[in-house]
Amino acid sequence: MEIKRPLLLISNDDGYQAKGIRSLVEMVSDYGDVIVCAPEDARSGFSCAFSATIPLRLIQRECREGIEVWSCNGTPVDCVKMALAEICPRRPDMVIGGINHGDNASVNAHYSGTMGVVLEGCMKYIPSVAFSLCDHRDDADFEPLRPFIRDVMQRVLQDGLPKGVCLNVNFPVLEGSGEREEVRNYAGVKVCRMSPGTWKQEVTRCHHPRGYDYWWMVGHYQNDAPEATDTDRWALEHGYVAITPTQIDLTAYQAIDIIKGWNL
Amino acid sequence: MEIKRPLLLISNDDGYQAKGIRSLVEMVSDYGDVIVCAPEDARSGFSCAFSATIPLRLIQRECREGIEVWSCNGTPVDCVKMALAEICPRRPDMVIGGINHGDNASVNAHYSGTMGVVLEGCMKYIPSVAFSLCDHRDDADFEPLRPFIRDVMQRVLQDGLPKGVCLNVNFPVLEGSGEREEVRNYAGVKVCRMSPGTWKQEVTRCHHPRGYDYWWMVGHYQNDAPEATDTDRWALEHGYVAITPTQIDLTAYQAIDIIKGWNL
Repeated sequence: MEIKRPLLLISNDDGYQAKGIRSLVEMVSDYGDVIVCAPEDARSGFSCAFSATIPLRLIQRECREGIEVWSCNGTPVDCVKMALAEICPRRPDMVIGGINHGDNASVNAHYSGTMGVVLEGCMKYIPSVAFSLCDHRDDADFEPLRPFIRDVMQRVLQDGLPKGVCLNVNFPVLEGSGEREEVRNYAGVKVCRMSPGTWKQEVTRCHHPRGYDYWWMVGHYQNDAPEATDTDRWALEHGYVAITPTQIDLTAYQAIDIIKGWNL
Repeated sequence: MEIKRPLLLISNDDGYQAKGIRSLVEMVSDYGDVIVCAPEDARSGFSCAFSATIPLRLIQRECREGIEVWSCNGTPVDCVKMALAEICPRRPDMVIGGINHGDNASVNAHYSGTMGVVLEGCMKYIPSVAFSLCDHRDDADFEPLRPFIRDVMQRVLQDGLPKGVCLNVNFPVLEGSGEREEVRNYAGVKVCRMSPGTWKQEVTRCHHPRGYDYWWMVGHYQNDAPEATDTDRWALEHGYVAITPTQIDLTAYQAIDIIKGWNL
């Protein structure tokens, strides 16, 4: 009887060429066969968007022993849907998003295309995990994440995840350098809740030479529960790897009786 | 002392010219001053996406007593962020999404740009409500929704909503016609949980005359808890208006101890 190796479906929102996704593939490819299907280029902030009105295309970019890489012209969620429908030879054992160049903790989980990948996997009842590093740079150093990513992968492949639950794993940036190894360590791992937070001053107005105004989306993040020690933001700010179990069910159960009381 | 009328910020994902948003404005404009800021054209399936990489523009389309209409070249979420930052003269008393041409119940809440509008309002701690009709047609009949929308609006303006909670209100299509008034009634209003569900056969392959394959995103929805009577899908399938209280906090609290048990 042939034993199939686990199948790992990997996507992101930074594009198939990003250092983060290439590092991830290299870190986990010994756990199983890897299929990458990722956007042609950056799709940050694409959330769970899918392409309702444009035709989608796939291009195979690499095919070596146990690793296939495809790009898709659509969103991160399109990539997962296309891979499941058209590329994967069997149902993946895991969907993995990342490694994202930038933080996806707190309310950023709503905007993140990396979380879009993982929520999509979770909606298909496949164990799904997103990895993100709080460093937007193209050449961010993902190496310190390796043992943590491998530990999480191994546990998820072995134990699975509860139905409708995926993991949002965020890593702080380590201070120091290779010369001071002792500071290149995380404080530990915290399993967290999603921090309440708000984006402030989100748009910047500019003036086009042709005479009209336009705006860039920027802004800065504010932690709305800075005193709470059980949130993902707190963990990141204190040097911990933050694991936020995240669910598909958006129901505000505690509000059902309040709205029922309106007797509409 | 001048008493300010409530300020209502309205957006959608079908575009500022859609019948649904125009009907909504007409139904609620006596409750307050209305600012519409909506996409230039259809942005269905845009979820909570925002535009990280393109410059945004605003065009004023209408300005009459108590009603301003603007279009934005971005996503539904961009529209809300831009309106809050650049258009609204004061903090809105409500953010309203819709009326969407098509159902946003169950997992569709994750993909919906209309829900993107409302989640964005909720993330800014403004009471926010999405209205959707299970009818995709451009000329869908929104008139039967009027008394329900006004009832919900009035309650939300009066009582507010719990922090971090918004409402996802979906209306089934009424069978029958004006000639048979007795069947043009909803069975009632149900306050629901979000139904688990799965999209199946989501992509259709086509062949381009130039010789390559491309795909359209389509698919059909499957209710994964058809026996449950407390879900939004059940309510809609049985003729009820479905109100699903929906929250920003995605934490799977019930999974925290499981993941802590991994001792990572």
